[in-house]
Amino acid sequence: MRALALTDSGPRLISGYAWPTPQPGEARLRVRLAGICATDLALVAGYKGGYRGVLGHEFVADVEAAPGHDEWVGKRVVGEINIGCGECSLCRRGLHKHCRRRASVGILRHDGALADALLLPVANLHEVPPTVPDEAAVFTEPLAAALEILEQVQVRPDLRVVVVGDGRLGQLIAQVLALTGCDLTVLGRHPGKLRLLAEAKAGTPRLSTPEVLDELAAAPADLVVEATGAAGGFATARRLVRPAGTLVLKSTFAGGLPDFDVSGLVVDEITLVGSRCGPFGPALRLLESGRVRVEPLIQARFPLDEAEAALAFAATKGVLKVVVQP
Amino acid sequence: MRALALTDSGPRLISGYAWPTPQPGEARLRVRLAGICATDLALVAGYKGGYRGVLGHEFVADVEAAPGHDEWVGKRVVGEINIGCGECSLCRRGLHKHCRRRASVGILRHDGALADALLLPVANLHEVPPTVPDEAAVFTEPLAAALEILEQVQVRPDLRVVVVGDGRLGQLIAQVLALTGCDLTVLGRHPGKLRLLAEAKAGTPRLSTPEVLDELAAAPADLVVEATGAAGGFATARRLVRPAGTLVLKSTFAGGLPDFDVSGLVVDEITLVGSRCGPFGPALRLLESGRVRVEPLIQARFPLDEAEAALAFAATKGVLKVVVQP
Repeated sequence: MRALALTDSGPRLISGYAWPTPQPGEARLRVRLAGICATDLALVAGYKGGYRGVLGHEFVADVEAAPGHDEWVGKRVVGEINIGCGECSLCRRGLHKHCRRRASVGILRHDGALADALLLPVANLHEVPPTVPDEAAVFTEPLAAALEILEQVQVRPDLRVVVVGDGRLGQLIAQVLALTGCDLTVLGRHPGKLRLLAEAKAGTPRLSTPEVLDELAAAPADLVVEATGAAGGFATARRLVRPAGTLVLKSTFAGGLPDFDVSGLVVDEITLVGSRCGPFGPALRLLESGRVRVEPLIQARFPLDEAEAALAFAATKGVLKVVVQP
Repeated sequence: MRALALTDSGPRLISGYAWPTPQPGEARLRVRLAGICATDLALVAGYKGGYRGVLGHEFVADVEAAPGHDEWVGKRVVGEINIGCGECSLCRRGLHKHCRRRASVGILRHDGALADALLLPVANLHEVPPTVPDEAAVFTEPLAAALEILEQVQVRPDLRVVVVGDGRLGQLIAQVLALTGCDLTVLGRHPGKLRLLAEAKAGTPRLSTPEVLDELAAAPADLVVEATGAAGGFATARRLVRPAGTLVLKSTFAGGLPDFDVSGLVVDEITLVGSRCGPFGPALRLLESGRVRVEPLIQARFPLDEAEAALAFAATKGVLKVVVQP
């Protein structure tokens, strides 16, 4: 089969990649559509160092085979990407996604979805409602990641909230937070992306200028979400949160924060919340309801044969979602 | 009157300090007993740079005068240390302690309690129950700071909790957390202090050795409280908290954390909670109930005339609470 693999010499489309064989409890999925995410680009750039294998963890697919679980065959599905050992204390507490021996599809010890097919435990599958098109279902994973914020923090309607970042993830986060009725501002650098937010009624989009930052810092928010993927975004987010407020860190970036003022965090009683993967069920329900608007975020579609070009295009500054079709 | 003031040439006992005159809404308090805290030592060492004035924010005192509030005169009191402007959006939300224009007794723009007398708004006063001796009441402020953790985090009885630090604040935090019924371990470096914890039934005291740290890291805790006041304590605390767990930062220390791994916080979905001053009412109730054991933490008592020596002794490595009596 074809697969976009991260090799020692970079990402390569390999056409003779071995078809995977499902074990009992696993399903082989034929990919219908896969998305490229900032994490894929970070892996290519060397984040986490070692990953070698097929990239891609955002996908919608058909179940082709599922030994011992024939009821799944033929279903259109999305899949949770973390596969825990099932035995450690974290897995037994339901924290599979934090298992220290976990695999993560396309990220850690498990081939991903930028391919004709991939394997996944049946336990990780979620059937896609028939009214949700592939172009929406492919957003289930990042939408779940956005929803994780609501799992961790009670976003009350009376809160003033700022999302820093108007990129792929920032767009989804803003849409999800806007559903709570909170007073939402979204800071971005790209007029086109801010326009998308306005069209999705996802809060008040503001261009991130020094004047706007000064204005927001003068009346700091109860909750700020950092979704820029850059160290500078953290400093901005910290500046915009009020004392005794909450700062959600949604994006990973390489390197430390040499100027990080821990004492300031204590004096101002800030709560920092690290936030990663989220719940698939609610994401699918939201997509089915039509309350979020994801398809306009797709900026380009490439055939799998052009996956290397797709990856390069996704890395272009300012580009939103790029999808790949086998 | 006499006052231990932080001057340009360091902390000095000044015997001719002007007696303060209360304005309407203020009370003049005659100090009965004052405590020295790590923050005092940090101020002397230059933390926050500019404070100049009388040191001391832990005290029990008698109300000597209170223009317009005669009902307070003669009462034995403790007092909340933050004085907000009363007008800004934070004050109007009840967040006086975070007011950007606040004064803090003995810390910021307001003379402190290492003196014969100090001023405080009547609104900041709490009467001390008659059964609570001065030697216990002087711990109200740091005990309230320990209780702030329970205001911010739901410490459920089934949680595994580690307190890193067996110093002045760590001792109080451990006692407060132990009341919740949680599975508590306290890490320290001083056998004498660990013995005090054992006598107070404040969890399981453990000497912080590489072997003990390895053992605890192998089964990381749900909640870890950093109370060492040192950058190294943060690294230890981070290592001992499980994924999706909570790390409470209780101590301020100078300098940044150049190795702070923000992405690790996101991937492990850690919640960091900065925690400072807490509620006085519950602290007084706990002292009255006898459920916390604070008097054994007093290691030395100095007369106010020897306040400079008291400060020097409090800065000695390993010393617990030092109190000063006018």
